[in-house]
Amino acid sequence: MSDQPVQAFEPPYYLAVFTTVRTQEQTGYSETADRMEELVQDIPGYLGMDHAQTPGGLGISVGYFRDAEALTQWRTQAEHREAQQRGREQWYESYTLHVAKVERSHGFTRA
Amino acid sequence: MSDQPVQAFEPPYYLAVFTTVRTQEQTGYSETADRMEELVQDIPGYLGMDHAQTPGGLGISVGYFRDAEALTQWRTQAEHREAQQRGREQWYESYTLHVAKVERSHGFTRA
Repeated sequence: MSDQPVQAFEPPYYLAVFTTVRTQEQTGYSETADRMEELVQDIPGYLGMDHAQTPGGLGISVGYFRDAEALTQWRTQAEHREAQQRGREQWYESYTLHVAKVERSHGFTRA
Repeated sequence: MSDQPVQAFEPPYYLAVFTTVRTQEQTGYSETADRMEELVQDIPGYLGMDHAQTPGGLGISVGYFRDAEALTQWRTQAEHREAQQRGREQWYESYTLHVAKVERSHGFTRA
């Protein structure tokens, strides 16, 4: 993840919006997040990831994938599944996941 | 917007992911953001909004709408169009917009 937003790709492509509220118990979270960021790069069709975190508030991650199959491959990746399980047990107070097919996109960069 | 993530709705519904990097020139931004948050409530089919902002980094807003028409109505709302224009002139270094149709969603809340 960089400080720049992921660019607009040519539709159709897929995205997964993952919105989270964390618990007080964040042991191991950042190591796992770093590992997931590394692992997802191996998924064919992975396009990029945006992340923003309001201190003490909501976190939003958006992952971009070329097609639904790429997203399924990431969702079911063994180490990622373990991380999801640990998230429910330990790191997340609540979360929502929205999986969607992009129909339209555009970008802007200051001249 | 609350501190809790917007819930999972019954698909299909639409979302717009808006990822931003801001400039140094933020005069008027927060007043306009508050006004937009108020105005969007008037759009029939508006479902909710998530927002997260990494200090000094990426901002992500995700708006949820019942259908594409609701989203179009919001995009073309007169006062919102003025705000978009001012965003390009003044507040945003860069941004990306992804408009997508949700196919699958679920939520988790700690027991």
